[in-house]
Amino acid sequence: MLKLLSLNPISNLTHLGFSRFLNCNKIITGKSRMASSLYTTSCGQASKLLFRQLFEKESCTYTYLLADASHPQKPAVLIDPVDKTVERDLALIKDLGLKLIYALNTHVHADHVTGTGLIKSKVPDVKSVISRASNGKADCLVEPGDEIFFGDLFLEVRSTPGHTLGCVTYVTGDGPKQPQPRMAFTGDALLIRGCGRTDFQGGSSVQLYKSVHSQIFTLPKDTLVCPAHDYKGFTVSTVGEEMQYNARLTKDEETFTKIMENLNLPYPKMIDIAVPANMVCGLQDPNPSASI
Amino acid sequence: MLKLLSLNPISNLTHLGFSRFLNCNKIITGKSRMASSLYTTSCGQASKLLFRQLFEKESCTYTYLLADASHPQKPAVLIDPVDKTVERDLALIKDLGLKLIYALNTHVHADHVTGTGLIKSKVPDVKSVISRASNGKADCLVEPGDEIFFGDLFLEVRSTPGHTLGCVTYVTGDGPKQPQPRMAFTGDALLIRGCGRTDFQGGSSVQLYKSVHSQIFTLPKDTLVCPAHDYKGFTVSTVGEEMQYNARLTKDEETFTKIMENLNLPYPKMIDIAVPANMVCGLQDPNPSASI
Repeated sequence: MLKLLSLNPISNLTHLGFSRFLNCNKIITGKSRMASSLYTTSCGQASKLLFRQLFEKESCTYTYLLADASHPQKPAVLIDPVDKTVERDLALIKDLGLKLIYALNTHVHADHVTGTGLIKSKVPDVKSVISRASNGKADCLVEPGDEIFFGDLFLEVRSTPGHTLGCVTYVTGDGPKQPQPRMAFTGDALLIRGCGRTDFQGGSSVQLYKSVHSQIFTLPKDTLVCPAHDYKGFTVSTVGEEMQYNARLTKDEETFTKIMENLNLPYPKMIDIAVPANMVCGLQDPNPSASI
Repeated sequence: MLKLLSLNPISNLTHLGFSRFLNCNKIITGKSRMASSLYTTSCGQASKLLFRQLFEKESCTYTYLLADASHPQKPAVLIDPVDKTVERDLALIKDLGLKLIYALNTHVHADHVTGTGLIKSKVPDVKSVISRASNGKADCLVEPGDEIFFGDLFLEVRSTPGHTLGCVTYVTGDGPKQPQPRMAFTGDALLIRGCGRTDFQGGSSVQLYKSVHSQIFTLPKDTLVCPAHDYKGFTVSTVGEEMQYNARLTKDEETFTKIMENLNLPYPKMIDIAVPANMVCGLQDPNPSASI
């Protein structure tokens, strides 16, 4: 397990203006307190998490903003930004005085175009992040066990394939200075009372079942479940709640697989546009000079 | 200032099956800890706030669920429930093992039908709450300074007219066992970077300006602003943020009034249905036997 964000020796993003061997290691230290705690789950600790959940109505996508508000630079990460709401997200980041350092995707989305490439074109220092297993291109290709630091806080990378072959769940760190309760950004692997479909992009219901049970349901029960989508207006759940009430994942594996095989969902409207775009941070034809 | 939820001597809700002199006083004590902290802003204290934000997509309404998770009965309140999402809200309350005791409105809404009456028809012990100044009917008519207890936690009632003549803001209590930071449920008085319109239902831009500046902007700057609506996908703000960045309420009173006079907004689609219904908890023709 790496203690820093992993080195990314094989990323080839020259078409986006990035060098072939990009070092994503990042350590930022500092423990000064800020006056306002804003929206936080931490308490009584040196580091303080600033947390915002943001919603994109058309695709019902949740984007998450996290920052170490105790750090002088207030380093921040965005998880699953959407191209259509990049202006909103960057305006908020500016208002809050944060320094965005990473724009992460939990997976190659099929229902919206990621905002990571657009963000990089507007804030060149930001590094895009996706799992190596996704086969997507990004500045940093993360693997299970990697830890993505922003200030003194970090996200742990857990492999949760099944919705797509490269899905990961980002979990806030385990440690005395990390937020309590922990927070799991589950993408489409685990939704509130449901889960993502498994019938495209290398999806597998058997794999998804194993992913959720081995990588998410093993977290402390009070861990907050923060999904990439909700279609009923829920905003958050907990691991304990989903272990008890998830309509699909509380079943045995065989029943779960049958449920997933019989969803009869329509072909995703956006998939033919979104997936090719999202394999390259949402920008299929970027202006290289704008994204350096 | 009353320390309990105010007595309601003049409510006349016989058509809903309520007695004329309804005592809404409620004290529930208890400080036992629950294992899971769920979604909370409290820490290191005897009482723990369980908090959920819920979204109704059509009217972009936020409903808030708060409970004292440290209390054996887990008494809960719902702020601004919507009729269309009552089933969802009650299912969540059941899943979380909460006892819903109050269903509150910040004001007589014009854009959706409140769920308070429907909730009462399904959970008869629940008391509906609205401000006396609204002229609406409810089990409990609250006034500025009243404190609405659920377990050891309470909401303070602040008068914030201007969007309508009866708007109130519910603010989590000030005290050692109350959540930190505080949370202000501002209804339509203060929205994130904006505010509610002031051109109907006894609205007044002069009054709204005074309400926000005297009743909300005087709260600690880290107080969370939890509005009844957001149309851009924001979920929360802070008093400090709105004092600095609110597009309307950072202006002087004269400029603010001019902005509000020149919004040229269309006549609200739902107002002719919603307002008469919301004057009586959303149920204009209830079945008395079902709501006792």
